[in-house]
Amino acid sequence: MSMTCVPSVVDNWILTAQCPSQLGTVDVVTRYLREHNCYVTEHQSFDDQASQQFFIRVEFRPLGGELDISRFEEDFAPRAREFGMSFELTPPERLTPVVIMVSRADHCLNDLLYRYRTGQLPITIKAVISNHPDLAPLAEWHGLEYHHLPITAETKPEQEAAVWRIIEQSGAELVVLARYMQVLSSEMCERLSGRAINIHHSLLPGFKGAKPYHQAFEKGVKLVGATAHYINDDLDEGPIISQGVEPVSHADSPEDLVARGRDIECLTLARAVSLHVQRRVFLNGKRTVVFQR
Amino acid sequence: MSMTCVPSVVDNWILTAQCPSQLGTVDVVTRYLREHNCYVTEHQSFDDQASQQFFIRVEFRPLGGELDISRFEEDFAPRAREFGMSFELTPPERLTPVVIMVSRADHCLNDLLYRYRTGQLPITIKAVISNHPDLAPLAEWHGLEYHHLPITAETKPEQEAAVWRIIEQSGAELVVLARYMQVLSSEMCERLSGRAINIHHSLLPGFKGAKPYHQAFEKGVKLVGATAHYINDDLDEGPIISQGVEPVSHADSPEDLVARGRDIECLTLARAVSLHVQRRVFLNGKRTVVFQR
Amino acid sequence: MSMTCVPSVVDNWILTAQCPSQLGTVDVVTRYLREHNCYVTEHQSFDDQASQQFFIRVEFRPLGGELDISRFEEDFAPRAREFGMSFELTPPERLTPVVIMVSRADHCLNDLLYRYRTGQLPITIKAVISNHPDLAPLAEWHGLEYHHLPITAETKPEQEAAVWRIIEQSGAELVVLARYMQVLSSEMCERLSGRAINIHHSLLPGFKGAKPYHQAFEKGVKLVGATAHYINDDLDEGPIISQGVEPVSHADSPEDLVARGRDIECLTLARAVSLHVQRRVFLNGKRTVVFQR
Amino acid sequence: MSMTCVPSVVDNWILTAQCPSQLGTVDVVTRYLREHNCYVTEHQSFDDQASQQFFIRVEFRPLGGELDISRFEEDFAPRAREFGMSFELTPPERLTPVVIMVSRADHCLNDLLYRYRTGQLPITIKAVISNHPDLAPLAEWHGLEYHHLPITAETKPEQEAAVWRIIEQSGAELVVLARYMQVLSSEMCERLSGRAINIHHSLLPGFKGAKPYHQAFEKGVKLVGATAHYINDDLDEGPIISQGVEPVSHADSPEDLVARGRDIECLTLARAVSLHVQRRVFLNGKRTVVFQR
Repeated sequence: MSMTCVPSVVDNWILTAQCPSQLGTVDVVTRYLREHNCYVTEHQSFDDQASQQFFIRVEFRPLGGELDISRFEEDFAPRAREFGMSFELTPPERLTPVVIMVSRADHCLNDLLYRYRTGQLPITIKAVISNHPDLAPLAEWHGLEYHHLPITAETKPEQEAAVWRIIEQSGAELVVLARYMQVLSSEMCERLSGRAINIHHSLLPGFKGAKPYHQAFEKGVKLVGATAHYINDDLDEGPIISQGVEPVSHADSPEDLVARGRDIECLTLARAVSLHVQRRVFLNGKRTVVFQR
Repeated sequence: MSMTCVPSVVDNWILTAQCPSQLGTVDVVTRYLREHNCYVTEHQSFDDQASQQFFIRVEFRPLGGELDISRFEEDFAPRAREFGMSFELTPPERLTPVVIMVSRADHCLNDLLYRYRTGQLPITIKAVISNHPDLAPLAEWHGLEYHHLPITAETKPEQEAAVWRIIEQSGAELVVLARYMQVLSSEMCERLSGRAINIHHSLLPGFKGAKPYHQAFEKGVKLVGATAHYINDDLDEGPIISQGVEPVSHADSPEDLVARGRDIECLTLARAVSLHVQRRVFLNGKRTVVFQR
Repeated sequence: MSMTCVPSVVDNWILTAQCPSQLGTVDVVTRYLREHNCYVTEHQSFDDQASQQFFIRVEFRPLGGELDISRFEEDFAPRAREFGMSFELTPPERLTPVVIMVSRADHCLNDLLYRYRTGQLPITIKAVISNHPDLAPLAEWHGLEYHHLPITAETKPEQEAAVWRIIEQSGAELVVLARYMQVLSSEMCERLSGRAINIHHSLLPGFKGAKPYHQAFEKGVKLVGATAHYINDDLDEGPIISQGVEPVSHADSPEDLVARGRDIECLTLARAVSLHVQRRVFLNGKRTVVFQR
Repeated sequence: MSMTCVPSVVDNWILTAQCPSQLGTVDVVTRYLREHNCYVTEHQSFDDQASQQFFIRVEFRPLGGELDISRFEEDFAPRAREFGMSFELTPPERLTPVVIMVSRADHCLNDLLYRYRTGQLPITIKAVISNHPDLAPLAEWHGLEYHHLPITAETKPEQEAAVWRIIEQSGAELVVLARYMQVLSSEMCERLSGRAINIHHSLLPGFKGAKPYHQAFEKGVKLVGATAHYINDDLDEGPIISQGVEPVSHADSPEDLVARGRDIECLTLARAVSLHVQRRVFLNGKRTVVFQR
């Protein structure tokens, strides 16, 4: 399957919207764009019969002159309201502000930082937060703030409060848990609902929880994988964005599986982040709608 | 990558259209559908900057009453004309009439016939044509006409004329070359332009022409593949619809590669046919636009 | 990953053996072959530190004259005994006698029968057994005995007894459960231990039990898969031989997933059968050792 | 297919050997190991009927006491000689000295350096050589010598002489061309025969030479890939070690293909290097024998 990031530079405006299914949902969007001389370059919409929800993503260029966001939103809001439609307008080449959380494993962080510094991901990293000091040099080589916030059962509330302050003050719109090996509190999960992506190193729902590669070894599977999902307060149960897989052999020890898994974790997480910041992912109850490229 | 057929039952109407790029191409379609109370369930459009062509595919259900095709076409035609837009309307559960051409290898035919008899492909097979008698029993067990039309350098024109008569009389809209090992004349290719799909047993443009698996063995590649493409009068150069790939080993003889390749040929061809009959494939010069599910 | 059958014609002798790990396990085999002028064409061995078990598979050709199986076994037995080694000698082009069990779904049966009739699998099918009459025509077109043995909670013991008689009388060495939708009794599982392969339509351990594709839909996974495994009396927990996977989309209904899954089930099961009959699979506790080509 | 590096720590001794096919080739190796109380943990051998060459790789642990390399080689040499057998003995956890050559693209270098600094590849990097200054900071952050050796048509002989001096003085056994965009002279290719790995950004033999992704775009392929191969004096024609592939879409511009290709190039090259340094790759004329894990 496609494992790579969707090429990331979106040099068009993006309009995404979501509402309950009904007649005219596509037209209300496309007609508005036409009336405002917006040239549509890419359009995907989907009406989910199971959830009775409608999802749309349009890339466009305004012809003749700049596009005034607040005016656009003002004008479109009333029509959207009739459909109970929530929408978001994203300017070209918008960089989504991101905070990355890690523990000791550095492979996902290293991968994200490489894509970031080479402009392969349209993000701006505001800070790296860790419960360990280990990865500070890597963050600092990239000129990034590194916050070492140790955590214990006792200090968890304080630590999460500190994490939250950093997220809020940084204006981060997305939090990426790049192998952050702590369970977030329900309150934290709620606050980050729909804007925090975690990478779990198994093909969920298989091998939830701790040491999935060791579980995989015991079970003798012939494939291992990784799952990137939005977090919710049900551990490893959040809506799935992307999954990757890799064949393994009887000769692979649990440590070998851990090693093999690193690449697939990096690719699966980078792909999920790339899809999210390009506004290609929509929450649909416990599932996601993903408009692939 | 996804190798399977796109699940084939399309129980909605499908409108596909294509025209030169310009402002309003999406709106002219979506507005018309809205005005006629057509409920859009799936919509994909793409504006190709390289070719300056626009492509759109919409699935919809008419609300309140039947949809009158000729009326629809009449009403929509003038608007389409303004955009130089060609369009096609496909009713729900439409079965595309197909003629299959084969030689001696039976794996692709067997695979297509299985999908056909189990309703996995929305096609109706009008006839099977071969330059050999070998596969008659397989066709006949499926209750299909089998035309054995031998061919030699001398008889080629007559044979192709006979083939063409069968295609025309059967009303076939699609011809599938399921390992038909004869090169069609330029005239035949032209007649079948955009409606004949061939499976070539290599990852084109690698290993064109004869015995691709033997070429692959000589080269020592670690992957073999298959390519489904529309035929044109430039051998193995027609627009590509789908490609599949399979790892191989140093221990594989040319015969082993042939054996390994069968599965990937079947899947790649079935996928291309499935995409085509669901109106997901558009010709775009020497390339194709494919709206994946 | 490699999805295809290992090309199946093995025109060499195959010696497979297994014993507790110790010094000299390889040498006892290779020296014997050398002393008897056996020309080794392919050799794989593996010593599993976790289970302290040794596994070896050798393909060879006897030089100068025929190979006398009973003599070979007699001569080798004492040396093997010293190592607590069990071994099996398989002649070239040996066809493994197989019984196939099915219910109503025909895709795996159809796939196996195609490979069988075209000589892609070195097996001879002794009978097809089903708890439903539906697939009789397919079996009969291939000239195969079809036993319709209906089953209910009450008749289960009698039915299994009848099944067992057919397996025994047919001399089947392998039983393939090609979508046989009945749980076998513990006694039956024990009798068939190590020689019955089941295909489960999910990536185990995910989605055990009934309707895995519907479970997968509910969970919103982005990949579905299939698992071929030896049966044991712990449902869907037997040692895994091969697994296959396929990306899916938010637009796929449960029925679509079922449709997409068919191809991957066929390939995964055919691959497992092909590996087994080529003596490439060894039981290693709850896991398997598979010497891939 | 498996895209990841073979897990890299080999904590056993490795004996690899190659010779013309004949009776007794396996036995001469395994018997010697048995006589010297070497405990075999993994063994693969293959006899290529096409080239009439024999290849073997054995991992083992000497029981009771250290293994004296020179003694081992002395003792084994005479037996090997009888078979015209070349062999190599590799100690546990041996780090292969490597020189990496690059131009401006940094993705493959970045990937290799990450695997190197995290101990995922059993190599020691002696130097990074480039015809451009751009990647010096990356190399230096890893504490590596960076040699900037510009090249022009006129200075090519001198530059290659300088490159060669660095390779020789560093004692490098492997040269990795990690997107080094210069064609090496025939003389250089000869000197590096069998010990220089290049990554080409296409599925060879498709799209040789310059700008393969642009060629792929023009052709409208649905898959792009990468090929890692030993260099020889026939451009992009050296023996292939590993290949990787990635699906692409009609919406991908040539630049998008370049972006998508980066991941697959990194994985394919890292895999080839990992296979090579683990002594899993053998030259077999214009092809390779690769003993996969």
